[in-house]
Amino acid sequence: MEILSSVSIPKRKDETHKGDYGKILLIGGNVNLGGAIMLAARACVYSGSGLITVATHPTNHAALHSRCPEAMVIDINDTKMLTKMIENTDCILIGPGLGCDFKGNNAITFLLQNIQPHQTLIVDGDAITIFSKLKPAIPTCKVIFTPHQKEWERLSNIPIEEQTDERNREAADRIGATIVLKKHGTEIYFKDNEYKLPIGTPAMATGGMGDTLAGMITSFVGQFNDMQEAVTSAVYAHSFIGEKLAETMYVVPPSRLISEIPHIMKTLED
Amino acid sequence: MEILSSVSIPKRKDETHKGDYGKILLIGGNVNLGGAIMLAARACVYSGSGLITVATHPTNHAALHSRCPEAMVIDINDTKMLTKMIENTDCILIGPGLGCDFKGNNAITFLLQNIQPHQTLIVDGDAITIFSKLKPAIPTCKVIFTPHQKEWERLSNIPIEEQTDERNREAADRIGATIVLKKHGTEIYFKDNEYKLPIGTPAMATGGMGDTLAGMITSFVGQFNDMQEAVTSAVYAHSFIGEKLAETMYVVPPSRLISEIPHIMKTLED
Amino acid sequence: MEILSSVSIPKRKDETHKGDYGKILLIGGNVNLGGAIMLAARACVYSGSGLITVATHPTNHAALHSRCPEAMVIDINDTKMLTKMIENTDCILIGPGLGCDFKGNNAITFLLQNIQPHQTLIVDGDAITIFSKLKPAIPTCKVIFTPHQKEWERLSNIPIEEQTDERNREAADRIGATIVLKKHGTEIYFKDNEYKLPIGTPAMATGGMGDTLAGMITSFVGQFNDMQEAVTSAVYAHSFIGEKLAETMYVVPPSRLISEIPHIMKTLED
Amino acid sequence: MEILSSVSIPKRKDETHKGDYGKILLIGGNVNLGGAIMLAARACVYSGSGLITVATHPTNHAALHSRCPEAMVIDINDTKMLTKMIENTDCILIGPGLGCDFKGNNAITFLLQNIQPHQTLIVDGDAITIFSKLKPAIPTCKVIFTPHQKEWERLSNIPIEEQTDERNREAADRIGATIVLKKHGTEIYFKDNEYKLPIGTPAMATGGMGDTLAGMITSFVGQFNDMQEAVTSAVYAHSFIGEKLAETMYVVPPSRLISEIPHIMKTLED
Repeated sequence: MEILSSVSIPKRKDETHKGDYGKILLIGGNVNLGGAIMLAARACVYSGSGLITVATHPTNHAALHSRCPEAMVIDINDTKMLTKMIENTDCILIGPGLGCDFKGNNAITFLLQNIQPHQTLIVDGDAITIFSKLKPAIPTCKVIFTPHQKEWERLSNIPIEEQTDERNREAADRIGATIVLKKHGTEIYFKDNEYKLPIGTPAMATGGMGDTLAGMITSFVGQFNDMQEAVTSAVYAHSFIGEKLAETMYVVPPSRLISEIPHIMKTLED
Repeated sequence: MEILSSVSIPKRKDETHKGDYGKILLIGGNVNLGGAIMLAARACVYSGSGLITVATHPTNHAALHSRCPEAMVIDINDTKMLTKMIENTDCILIGPGLGCDFKGNNAITFLLQNIQPHQTLIVDGDAITIFSKLKPAIPTCKVIFTPHQKEWERLSNIPIEEQTDERNREAADRIGATIVLKKHGTEIYFKDNEYKLPIGTPAMATGGMGDTLAGMITSFVGQFNDMQEAVTSAVYAHSFIGEKLAETMYVVPPSRLISEIPHIMKTLED
Repeated sequence: MEILSSVSIPKRKDETHKGDYGKILLIGGNVNLGGAIMLAARACVYSGSGLITVATHPTNHAALHSRCPEAMVIDINDTKMLTKMIENTDCILIGPGLGCDFKGNNAITFLLQNIQPHQTLIVDGDAITIFSKLKPAIPTCKVIFTPHQKEWERLSNIPIEEQTDERNREAADRIGATIVLKKHGTEIYFKDNEYKLPIGTPAMATGGMGDTLAGMITSFVGQFNDMQEAVTSAVYAHSFIGEKLAETMYVVPPSRLISEIPHIMKTLED
Repeated sequence: MEILSSVSIPKRKDETHKGDYGKILLIGGNVNLGGAIMLAARACVYSGSGLITVATHPTNHAALHSRCPEAMVIDINDTKMLTKMIENTDCILIGPGLGCDFKGNNAITFLLQNIQPHQTLIVDGDAITIFSKLKPAIPTCKVIFTPHQKEWERLSNIPIEEQTDERNREAADRIGATIVLKKHGTEIYFKDNEYKLPIGTPAMATGGMGDTLAGMITSFVGQFNDMQEAVTSAVYAHSFIGEKLAETMYVVPPSRLISEIPHIMKTLED
C-alpha cells in the first residue's frame, strides 16, 4: 500500500468554460437530514464544479439556496425531472442525508435503473447502508464507495477489528468498485493499487465532515480526467485543510473547512 | 476592436440619495433555479444600486431575503404588481434562472408589452434562449444581451466556430442591441464600437458567474449616465476581481466575488 | 444649530444583565418588504439590545431567524400577541418595510391605541408616510420620526427646497416630536435644541441604510437613559462607520455596516 | 467556594471518530422563539459535538439548516421520532426557546418519562420556569440546571437579594442537581464542591448568550468523561471568549462568540 504523500491538481486551461468542469448531480437530504446534502453541495461549489444540481426533499430547498445559491435544486420525488437530470450528468453522488427508509431505497433503485455506463457514481452515507442491505448489482459505470469503518463492515461483511489491508483488498475486488475507507489513516482501494493517507486529525471527527468529503470527491471526479488522481487529490486536500485549520482550532466545523477549499487547491496546483 | 485596458468609475457626489442610484427590477428564478437571481440581486446591492426589486417565484423569497435583505421581492406571477414595478423602474434585468418553459416565455412576453422607451433592458441566460426561439420585435428602449458563446449561436445563428469579429458585428447590428459576448477574452459590441477584454481567468468558469455579471451590468447601467461606460466598467470590474482572487484561489465562487465588488470599485474610482 | 462633532457612549456596568439593556419591539416587514425589518433587527442585536421582538408577516420569519437568531418573532397580524408584546416593551420601532396599504394603516392605528406614556416610539419609513396621511394624534409618549427629505415634506408639508432650519424647527414643534431629518448633513430636532451631523458619505446612499439607522436609534434609546444622547450617538455612530468603510468601499452595504457597530461603539465608549 | 481560575480541555486522541464525541439532542424552539435553539445548536457544532439532533417546531427547520447544516432536525411534536432520538442520545438539552405554555409542559413531561439513568440532562431557559411550576421528580440521571438569577429564584424559592452561597448550596442539595447560576461572577454548584467564575463582562449581557452557553455545556458534557470538568470548561471558555472579544467590541453578539469557540478551545487544550 502506497503512502499518499502528495498530490497535484491540474491547472485550468484558458480556453475553457463552466461546461468543461463537470455536470454534477447530488441526491440526498430527507426531511430530517437535509444539512448533509447542503454541505456536499457547497463543497462542490468551492471545489470548482461547473454545474451542480441537488435532488432533495422540497423542505430543504430554501436553506440550500440560502447557503449555496450557485446550485440548482429539484424535488427528489419528481421522477420525471430526476430522470432528465440523471441523463444530463457526468457524475452522481447519492447518500448524504438520504435516510435509510423505503424512500432512500426507492431513490437508489431508481438511480440504478437510469444510470449510464459512461457516468461515475459516488455512494456515500445512508446509501452505503442501503446498498449493504439491498445488494443490488453494481452498475457497469465507475463506482466509488466512501464508507467509514462501520459502513464498510456492513458493505464488506468484514468486522471492524478484522479489516486488514488484505481482506479489504479482496472485498473491494469482489464488490468491483473503488473504496475510500474513512478512518485515522484513510485508505483508498482502486482496481490496481492502494493508497494510505498519512495526514488527518481528530479535530475533523465531527458530523458533516464525511458529507463534505463526498462533495469534494464528486466535484474533483467531475472536473479531472483521471479518476484515480481526482479521488486521491480530493481525499488529500480534505485532510490537508483539516490539519491546517486544526493548528488553531480544537475542532474543524465542516462549513469552515469548505471555505478553505479553493485556497488549498491553489497551493496544490501543478 | 479596441482593447479594454482600463475603466474608471464616477465618484459619487455628496448631495445625492439612494434615488439617484437607480431603480432596478430583476426578473428570474423559477422553482429550480432560484439561486441565479439571488446572486444577481446581491451583486446589485454590492455594486451600489439604490433600490432593487426582485420578481421571482415565491419559493425563493425566504432564501433571497436571508442572503440579501437589502432587496425587495414580488411574486413573478403577480402581473398587477409586476406591471406597477416595471412602470417605476429605470433598468430591468430578465433571465437568471428564469427557465425556458412557457412560464419563462410568458414573463418575457409580458415584459415586452410593458417596457418603455426610456428604460434599459438587460437580457441574460434563459431569456436569451427564449428570445432566440420566440424572435420577438426588439423593444425601442436600449437593450443589452449578455450571451455566452452557445447562447450567442442561438441568438445570432452563427455557429461558435464561425463567430468572428466581423460576423458578430453584423449580427449585433441586425439585432439592434448591445452584445456582451462572454468567453475567454469577452467582447462587447456597442452600436458604434467594440471592445475586447484582456483580463479574466478560467478560475471564473463556474455556475453562477454569469448571473453575477448580469447583476453588475444592471446595477452599473442603473447608476451611471453613460450606458457604454457602465457596461464596460461592469465587465472589466467583474474580471478584475476574478483575476485578483484567483491569485490565491483555484476557483472563484460567485458569492465570494460579490463581496469584493465595493472594494474593487473604490480602486477604479475616478 | 449645533454641530454634532463627537459623542460618547456610556460604559456598561458590571452588575447588569440583558434586562437592563432594553426590551425592544420592531414592527414592519410585509410580504414584499421583509428585508427592511431584518436589517433593523440585526442592527439592534449588534448595537447591544437586551431583548428584541420582531412583529412581521410570517413569510419573513425563516429569513429573519436565519440572519438574526438573537431576535424573537411574532406574527404582525396576531393582535392578541401584539398587545401583550406592546405592554412589555420599553421602546417600539414601527415602519421598516411596513407597506403603505390598509394593513400598514391598521398596524399603526392598533399601536397608537395600545402604546403607553412611559414608552418611546420611533416612526420610520412607510409609517411616516401613513402618519402623514392619517394625521393621528401624536401619542403622549416620547416620539421620534426619522424621515428622509421627501418623507419630511409629506409629514411637515414643507417642500424639500423650502426645508430651512427655521421652518423645520417650527414643524418639529408643531408636531411635538423629535425629528431626525436624514440627508447630506443630517439634522436632529429635539424639543430644546438642534444638531447637524458633519460626517457621512454618499457611499451610504443605498436601500436599507435607513432601516439600519432606525434599528440603531431604537436600540440606543432602549439602552441609554438620556434619550437625546441615545439618538445623537446612534446617528453619529451610523455615519462614522459609513465614512470609515467608505475609505475602502465604493458603496457600503447595510449588512456590512451592521457587523461593524460593536467595534465603533467600543471606540466611542466613555 | 473555589475561584475557577483556569481550566484545561482534553486533547483528542488520534484513533477516534465522531461517535466518540457525543450524541446530543437539543429540544426547544417554538413558533416565536426558534432562534434560541439555533444558537444552542451552532454552539454545539463549534464546540465539537459528534452528532447533533434538534427537536424543534417545523417552522424553524429551514433557518436552522441555513445557519447550521451540521445538525439534524426533527419535529418536536413527532413523539415517535422523539422517543427514538431520546433513546439513542448521551446528553439532552431542553429549554432554549421552548416557551412556557402547555406545549412546553408536554415536551418536558414526555422527556422525563423517557430519559434514562445513564444520560445527562441540561435544563435551561423556559424549561427551568416550567420545572419550577410543575415540580416534577428530578430524574435519576445526572441533571444540570443553568438558571439566571430570576430563574433561580423560581426554582429555589430564594429571592434574588437572599441568594447567598450557603442558601444556594442548600437549595442545590435539596434539588439534587448541578446548578450553573449565571450572573456577574457565575457560580457552579456541584454535589461536592462549588466554583465561582472570576471572568466575564457586561458586553455579554445580550439576548441569546444564555442559549449559547447552554449549547456549549451540553456539547462539552457529551464529549468529555468528567462531567464536572466539562461544565467548568464550558462556563470558563464562554466567558473567556466574551472577555477577549469585548476588548474591541462594545457588545458581543452570540453569533459572533460562537465562531470563536474552536480557537479558544485550542488555546485551553491540555
